Amino acid sequence: MNKQQLIEQIKQKKSFLCVGLDTDINKIPQTLQAMDDPIFEFNKQIINKTAEYAVAYKPNTAFYEVYGAKGWQSLERTVQYIKNNHPEIFIIADAKRGDIGNTSANYAKAFFNSLNADALTVAPYMGKDSVEPFLNFEDKWVILLALTSNKGSQDFQYLKVGERMLHEQVLQTATTWASSEKMMFVVGATHPEELGEIRKMLPDYFFLVPGVGAQGGDLQSVAKYGLSKDCGLLVNSSRGIIYASNDYDFADRAGDEARKLQQQMETVLRDHQII
Amino acid sequence: MNKQQLIEQIKQKKSFLCVGLDTDINKIPQTLQAMDDPIFEFNKQIINKTAEYAVAYKPNTAFYEVYGAKGWQSLERTVQYIKNNHPEIFIIADAKRGDIGNTSANYAKAFFNSLNADALTVAPYMGKDSVEPFLNFEDKWVILLALTSNKGSQDFQYLKVGERMLHEQVLQTATTWASSEKMMFVVGATHPEELGEIRKMLPDYFFLVPGVGAQGGDLQSVAKYGLSKDCGLLVNSSRGIIYASNDYDFADRAGDEARKLQQQMETVLRDHQII
Repeated sequence: MNKQQLIEQIKQKKSFLCVGLDTDINKIPQTLQAMDDPIFEFNKQIINKTAEYAVAYKPNTAFYEVYGAKGWQSLERTVQYIKNNHPEIFIIADAKRGDIGNTSANYAKAFFNSLNADALTVAPYMGKDSVEPFLNFEDKWVILLALTSNKGSQDFQYLKVGERMLHEQVLQTATTWASSEKMMFVVGATHPEELGEIRKMLPDYFFLVPGVGAQGGDLQSVAKYGLSKDCGLLVNSSRGIIYASNDYDFADRAGDEARKLQQQMETVLRDHQII
Repeated sequence: MNKQQLIEQIKQKKSFLCVGLDTDINKIPQTLQAMDDPIFEFNKQIINKTAEYAVAYKPNTAFYEVYGAKGWQSLERTVQYIKNNHPEIFIIADAKRGDIGNTSANYAKAFFNSLNADALTVAPYMGKDSVEPFLNFEDKWVILLALTSNKGSQDFQYLKVGERMLHEQVLQTATTWASSEKMMFVVGATHPEELGEIRKMLPDYFFLVPGVGAQGGDLQSVAKYGLSKDCGLLVNSSRGIIYASNDYDFADRAGDEARKLQQQMETVLRDHQII
């Protein structure tokens, strides 16, 4: 998917919601657990009820790898299901890969060809030649970690390197590797003013924003500081949506939570005259 | 495996060789390619001929993920085969993972429980809470990226943060997270003098050293600068061993290359009075 297609989808659905498929077998309804592939079954029902409100899905690979080859199969089935039923939706493999060139080239094939995801999250520590192999695939995206939302982001990402902080240096350097047509950045929403500073630095790039709850309060400030003229945000919610209920009504309740977020996003997009 | 067991194995085998199982289906002998699981079959034969010279195997997950669930199965079979036939050998899943705590906890289960590897390579960018979940498994290890051997290591790892360079800061900070009984570091061998500086900083930690060819010249300087009183090194060779031949004799030739490196390592260990 290219940038224009993503922007069109955002405008059509009036949403910049990414639903995180961090599917934990211990948190899904008992009734599904006896099935042959409970994780895929859960995802399928979640997707059926949330797809009209979401522009992206983000399966996190750790939650699949924990079940080995069988888990990887659930991941493949999930991506295939989205591609078959909702081809307009942007699929992010949240895998945080990155290695020497030859190895990254294999990860790129794994996620862009074999799995058929549209985007992959990538860690920046190993530098340009660890990221470049992911940039050679048409209409596929790198989403590079810049500022993460966890406490540990304090350990290195805020270190001063010259005039800048490390995460700002990562952003600055990485924009010389790829344009906003091929690269996005993970920018946590813990301190929305920082998101504002980063938006000023990078007016054209999309940001994937994790760590926003289903409450809506956060969403207002993320939008205030993070929106670009084309929206430029994918805001992720995982647990708030997929575990809204762990009873028979889990999919309907997930749909309700996704719709609430979509409605808040619609308001925000109108307020900022993006739609 | 604990540190003492690893050191004993090094002394018994007179080797600190790690064989990288970066198995690429396009580089393995034609005769294997018609088999049901050519990657596992290749690995099995390589293991049979190299195990007496190696103290560690390091499958790189990218080379398995590129074949999806089937590739993951080849990886599981490979680890199982090593555990069943050479239980003394240290298995490193070279996966360079790292994510927020909850997600890292799932990666830890994936690699330490499901896959049963002894160690996992981990990326430092997301900080302490992204690494800690990997430290809660008895006799399992984190091998944290510090200084990598690729060209892109220049982009961020050498940035000055205060008095230190970023990779030195990563080393310094990470040693407050775990002792040398639980953590090792990836330290590239591109500039052996740097390895020497890092060894001075951290006399007790093991280093996993990639980027050493089968030529032996490199090995001399890596040993000179990197050895600790207990050896403290695992030196990896991948392509120089596993692709020594792509003909019917590939496993024998791999064994030859592994033996040559082991013999050089034996000399080095004697010269440094470690054995």
